[in-house]
Amino acid sequence: MIPRKRKLGRGVAMVGAGMSRFGVHQNLNTRDLFVEAYQDMLKSVERGVSPKDIEALYLGNAAAEVWEAQGSNAAMIAAATGLTPVPAVAIEAACASSGVALREGIIGIASGLYDVVLVGGTERMNTMPTDWNTLALASFSDTLYEGAAGFSFPALYASIATAYMHKYSVHHDDFLKGAIKNHLNGALNPKAHFKQTIKELMEARIVRAKQKGEPVPTWQTEMDFLHDPKANPVVAWPNTLYDCCPVSDGAACVLLVAEDIAKNYTSTPIYVIGTGHATGHDLADRDSLTSVPATKIAAKEAYDMAGVTPQDIKIAEVHDCFTIAEVLAIGDLGFFKEGKEAASAAGEGKTARDGIKPINTSGGLKCKGHPVGASGAAQAVEVFEQMRGHAGARQVKKDVNLALTHNVGAHGTNVAVHIFERRG
Amino acid sequence: MIPRKRKLGRGVAMVGAGMSRFGVHQNLNTRDLFVEAYQDMLKSVERGVSPKDIEALYLGNAAAEVWEAQGSNAAMIAAATGLTPVPAVAIEAACASSGVALREGIIGIASGLYDVVLVGGTERMNTMPTDWNTLALASFSDTLYEGAAGFSFPALYASIATAYMHKYSVHHDDFLKGAIKNHLNGALNPKAHFKQTIKELMEARIVRAKQKGEPVPTWQTEMDFLHDPKANPVVAWPNTLYDCCPVSDGAACVLLVAEDIAKNYTSTPIYVIGTGHATGHDLADRDSLTSVPATKIAAKEAYDMAGVTPQDIKIAEVHDCFTIAEVLAIGDLGFFKEGKEAASAAGEGKTARDGIKPINTSGGLKCKGHPVGASGAAQAVEVFEQMRGHAGARQVKKDVNLALTHNVGAHGTNVAVHIFERRG
Repeated sequence: MIPRKRKLGRGVAMVGAGMSRFGVHQNLNTRDLFVEAYQDMLKSVERGVSPKDIEALYLGNAAAEVWEAQGSNAAMIAAATGLTPVPAVAIEAACASSGVALREGIIGIASGLYDVVLVGGTERMNTMPTDWNTLALASFSDTLYEGAAGFSFPALYASIATAYMHKYSVHHDDFLKGAIKNHLNGALNPKAHFKQTIKELMEARIVRAKQKGEPVPTWQTEMDFLHDPKANPVVAWPNTLYDCCPVSDGAACVLLVAEDIAKNYTSTPIYVIGTGHATGHDLADRDSLTSVPATKIAAKEAYDMAGVTPQDIKIAEVHDCFTIAEVLAIGDLGFFKEGKEAASAAGEGKTARDGIKPINTSGGLKCKGHPVGASGAAQAVEVFEQMRGHAGARQVKKDVNLALTHNVGAHGTNVAVHIFERRG
Repeated sequence: MIPRKRKLGRGVAMVGAGMSRFGVHQNLNTRDLFVEAYQDMLKSVERGVSPKDIEALYLGNAAAEVWEAQGSNAAMIAAATGLTPVPAVAIEAACASSGVALREGIIGIASGLYDVVLVGGTERMNTMPTDWNTLALASFSDTLYEGAAGFSFPALYASIATAYMHKYSVHHDDFLKGAIKNHLNGALNPKAHFKQTIKELMEARIVRAKQKGEPVPTWQTEMDFLHDPKANPVVAWPNTLYDCCPVSDGAACVLLVAEDIAKNYTSTPIYVIGTGHATGHDLADRDSLTSVPATKIAAKEAYDMAGVTPQDIKIAEVHDCFTIAEVLAIGDLGFFKEGKEAASAAGEGKTARDGIKPINTSGGLKCKGHPVGASGAAQAVEVFEQMRGHAGARQVKKDVNLALTHNVGAHGTNVAVHIFERRG
């Protein structure tokens, strides 16, 4: 099904954005994390915003019911931020929860019902042992046909990765080069879960071995390090530890307003000119494993609405929960040709900060971290900062007047794509 | 905070409605239940609808993550109904999940993005022992300050009930009369969880005792039966078993379309003329226990939008998870004065099917059942049938041209109110 060309009844702009520190925060709960992001957002609104202006909250959260036995999440977050009694809507779409929440917040303003809407996501994941977490995450697959058969997410994406390697004769190293690139970006992001490049992580291990009087590893390059199963063990072949994003706690949010009042809040609104959302089947019901149909459909809706092409997009934050996911994304979004071209883009520097199409300047899910319900909103935070020239050490040099975010739930059962424009 | 007067950018009508049988369905999962409701809805559309017309799904689901280890719920339901790849949004607002989903579906059409939207809810709850279920449900309270302190939902509503009894000198029997009334309605609803009046349930117990040669109970009236702790034990005083709704499995859905195309689907659209949604605090942070602030705020938004008063409403489906909840609702919605008047309305026949303000003609949550994420949508199904004169044996005699639904999440942390109109 190709969606009909859709149009919003009213324009929407992003005028503020904030996020908490991403990482392992075992003393902070879902609310604490969101309040940290909210306060960061309030500071970002150039001409200020009163919490009284905020008329609704759209909150992405994948499974606080599981991780901290808390339902009624949007109401809890409304209370924690002092926004009660505004309507607050909790949206679950696995790892695309806040990408979908972003779309629903846009729709809320387009409907005429609201002028000012807070959209965000929050997730606290480090509350249980890793094996329980793997189980909890497996519930985002089709539990009847995938999770119940023992398919965890590293394994689901491993199926996709092996299919890609087989079909296009690409090498696992091609995927790892995406991780190296994303760590180069994330190391410059003060809120990232990991704050080191893979080279720095490697060098730290060598220093530690020397200090402890242990055998000193002979790694010369990042690839030596990544090929050493003691440093980078296999999780589900070909996915190694460094192919996988971490399990993170964190929150992020953005402030959306109706286009006609955007200048009340900032001289530089970031307009949302395209939104796309599509659902997809489990792996067994797809024609191909090397492409995610829901990404293509959501992207088409967003590109058509925005009236732009993939070539027009200056930077993109795409969903790289595993290194193969970034390769899939940049193919399905039309940035690179599916196959060798997409797989080798990171290694050839094309997706680096100074490349032809910078991807995941924030560090991506791989390095910035992936508190699942918050990741979609955090992507919007990154493009907000890059488009306004506030991204600090990781600021892209070229003028970023058009950017895209791409947020995937599970293995592509939910995909949200958004396109943003800075005018002038 | 009083919300500003809100207006939808575009009118919306309900043109189809369906629901699964409510009850204990241990062999049916969340998807099976929704598919049953969906097929029932398809049959209800007078001039027919092609599934290809449906552009989006808004799904209420409180906690399939907990009850059947399934996240990504909206995508799973989209696949089960054959609607993939349409955008599908899962909304969590505890027991108000599908009331909030209804509002978001309306907003989706009002935004101009969609013309035809499926809204529904589904919940499978009978997957774990009762004590685990009580725990699972307690996660809808404020887990940090209520659930963790041992407050279960029967206990939370018991606090409210005792406050009401104390403040207004009303009797627990007043509440039980609401249960008797709702069973009188629900016994006529072929899809209800319970299909018997309380009198019939009492008589069945007497017959059974005689058949088994056990001591024959001497109950003469329903009240005798309800006062006998062997028949109606205390759950959390004053809440007895018959004050509490059951734990149900079920699903419900409605088809919403843009007002301008409604007549393509039916000669008798049911227009949505008001929607309200508000959030509320936990019990400790409320000024009064005998009123739910979020209901008042959501109702005001809906009444203002619709331009009608509580007196204009012909029938209402209100959230009666416990008998006290119906008393709260009919006070906060402005149908009866909070206190003795609201508490005695059921006993005086005012809220009966032939009363001045029929309440819960479906049987309500008490008798029809309460698959939590489906209840808001099921309320819309009932008003759809009553307003079109298709409610069979429980059809209200007067002309129902204006109706209201009221769906509560937890103890009032989320409330959705909707007002429906039949024209001509």
